[in-house]
Amino acid sequence: MCERRGPARMELSDSWSAGSVAAVLPAGGSGERLGAARPKQFCALQGRPLVSHTARALERISWISDIIVVVSLEHIETMKSIIQKYGHKRITVVEGGVTRHRSIFNGLKIFAENKLSNCPLQKPEVVIIHDAVRPFIEEDILLKVVKAAKDHGAAGAIRPLVSTVVASSADGCLDHSLERARYRASEMPQAFLFDIIYQAYHQCNDYDLDYGTECLHLALKYCKTKAKLIEGSPDLWKVTYKRDLYAAESIIKDNLSQQVCVITDMKGDDVQVGFLLHETLKSHIKVKRISVSLCKDDNYMQNIILGQCYNFICMHVKKSAFQETQQLVDILENANVSTLYPVVLISVHLNVSENASFSSEMEDLTRIKEFAREVKKKNILVYGLLIHYNKGSKDLQGLGYLIQHCSTEKRHRYQNGTRSVKEGTTI
Amino acid sequence: MCERRGPARMELSDSWSAGSVAAVLPAGGSGERLGAARPKQFCALQGRPLVSHTARALERISWISDIIVVVSLEHIETMKSIIQKYGHKRITVVEGGVTRHRSIFNGLKIFAENKLSNCPLQKPEVVIIHDAVRPFIEEDILLKVVKAAKDHGAAGAIRPLVSTVVASSADGCLDHSLERARYRASEMPQAFLFDIIYQAYHQCNDYDLDYGTECLHLALKYCKTKAKLIEGSPDLWKVTYKRDLYAAESIIKDNLSQQVCVITDMKGDDVQVGFLLHETLKSHIKVKRISVSLCKDDNYMQNIILGQCYNFICMHVKKSAFQETQQLVDILENANVSTLYPVVLISVHLNVSENASFSSEMEDLTRIKEFAREVKKKNILVYGLLIHYNKGSKDLQGLGYLIQHCSTEKRHRYQNGTRSVKEGTTI
Repeated sequence: MCERRGPARMELSDSWSAGSVAAVLPAGGSGERLGAARPKQFCALQGRPLVSHTARALERISWISDIIVVVSLEHIETMKSIIQKYGHKRITVVEGGVTRHRSIFNGLKIFAENKLSNCPLQKPEVVIIHDAVRPFIEEDILLKVVKAAKDHGAAGAIRPLVSTVVASSADGCLDHSLERARYRASEMPQAFLFDIIYQAYHQCNDYDLDYGTECLHLALKYCKTKAKLIEGSPDLWKVTYKRDLYAAESIIKDNLSQQVCVITDMKGDDVQVGFLLHETLKSHIKVKRISVSLCKDDNYMQNIILGQCYNFICMHVKKSAFQETQQLVDILENANVSTLYPVVLISVHLNVSENASFSSEMEDLTRIKEFAREVKKKNILVYGLLIHYNKGSKDLQGLGYLIQHCSTEKRHRYQNGTRSVKEGTTI
Repeated sequence: MCERRGPARMELSDSWSAGSVAAVLPAGGSGERLGAARPKQFCALQGRPLVSHTARALERISWISDIIVVVSLEHIETMKSIIQKYGHKRITVVEGGVTRHRSIFNGLKIFAENKLSNCPLQKPEVVIIHDAVRPFIEEDILLKVVKAAKDHGAAGAIRPLVSTVVASSADGCLDHSLERARYRASEMPQAFLFDIIYQAYHQCNDYDLDYGTECLHLALKYCKTKAKLIEGSPDLWKVTYKRDLYAAESIIKDNLSQQVCVITDMKGDDVQVGFLLHETLKSHIKVKRISVSLCKDDNYMQNIILGQCYNFICMHVKKSAFQETQQLVDILENANVSTLYPVVLISVHLNVSENASFSSEMEDLTRIKEFAREVKKKNILVYGLLIHYNKGSKDLQGLGYLIQHCSTEKRHRYQNGTRSVKEGTTI
């Protein structure tokens, strides 16, 4: 799946066997602070509901076996249709309670009370509790929190306070202010040894369940477990107000323009080219690499597209760059992804032979150029590249640079709100 | 200036004589949490630096006599050029210190140490302290905070906590969590009787000046003044991270599409039409009404445009709707306001006579339609309306609805990132 930088991927396989980490995602909030018609977790950001963005972020992580999304009764069908529409695979929908704590408790019961729920989910060693409205969760922080939970019984992400915290007296005047440096904001994700948090929920009283919000507090109060606090990144913030939806949408747009799917359908020695391009690009942007013949497997591509790898580089050796390009555009059109923002598609025609006919290659590129002009009306920006590739060379930096440039230009277009499009460039 | 809803305007004139309220705006932050090349207060939002948005919000309020913007030495010239470029009138730039408290103290000294600074600013009764990075400050909360400061000596805006606040023990584990309902986040604006906050700053020690951030705390510690805490709106949040810049920009865009300048150049009975339109619109959107002949006073219009009233309704009686429209488009082009987002200009041609030649009116509108097609390339969206107006009628709701619809459509275009434009509609 999506390649990720940093050491996280290296470490995790040593630490847990499959099936020992699960996640509970309370998504039952009413969104009253947002002031919108629907709860914020169901608001669409770039055409996809917020809860689906968050679920996808968790699903990308292979060592999380099950994701329990807890929603209020009235939103169960909505959530099920989201799972179907966006192709979520490891999600179980559970009915929530009237408060956050009651919802989380319901989510945990699914593992512990198999007989009650007729659910074959395996009880995890560690359970992550996250929020449906924190979509920018990365593997590295999850790994840190889960490891710390295994060592300490409980762990949670924290952030420095942005504002000073004050206490008021009964007359609404300042009683005292807290020294900002000594306190932290408790954010998500949090993680617990399953038995600890489940026991804490079992022991806590109705007041806790109705008025409390902090899981770390329950673990401390009922299980004497002092959670390890882990400094997290600013991205962990919670979408609370309308302005946060604006911010989340802009970040998603920004991320999309930095995400590329490299598609190759090459055999033998030529496979190396795809690998080299991937290596060159991955230090700049997030790259997913797949090897597939576009003509054969539409479903597979549809799933990739729904997974939101929204820029594409399609590499061909030999003939028919045009046909493959057209095929991918058809898939993009069917998936409707280009309705809201431009999709960049770079069709790279590699010439590895030294005797190729220049005129026939140019003919193919001219067809792509005309095709590009036509599909740009559909918000799909096609670029055609012809490259004479020397097999001896390990260096595709020139191509990497060019492709990065295209991606940056796309982002720039967003920011300006304009739509200047170049079609069919050749090098 | 800009008309505002709510009772605030009614009350303020009873409460203070001119010259008794001033504001200090610390703008010396380095913006390191933002991760941008320049401090966030100088980042451009919709083409205008954040500090200018905030200063403008304060400047719109007539009962604030002076605004002191405190910036670091290296940004003094930047700030002065911002004042000149955006036509700020009541701002004095002061050099800041190395910390927030030292900067605020420098700002206050300008009033108290006239001899030192050779500055003729009158010492205010109440001083508002706000942040350059909180651009969405409204008159009602300022009024509440200033009134409370007059009664209590000090006052500040607060907000509910979004996250639970936790304290950690020495080993980085949870020590305890605070009960969220008992605490509040201290936000801005704050206000003080000048003598109290000035005395507090004079008495406080270097540790306070170097490590403290909370003015309310100083007033309590050194002057035993318990600040009144006033619940503020979510808009008071502080632009801290990159995501906040995204959010602020989206809010500004949203506000702009809800702001209209009605321009009339009418005499006698016809003046009433402009008034009626203004009354009809103002319950839906923010309306500024000016009466000016476009051909005569470019400078005045330039200032309006820089004040960011970005949609225009131009009302004409009799002839030459076209000429006036063309004139306003020229001014808009010169001001470069349409570079980043579309400006809507609705040219309303009122026919108050019963004997007017229909064909000559239609001719004028046809010219506007052609003109509209041309200027939409420059991101200025011109609509032409022809209205047969019966002087007896007090009702312009139809027109109000239509204009509101145009404005909403513009906002919709933003959100979709598309640009479908209608030109030259007639009713």
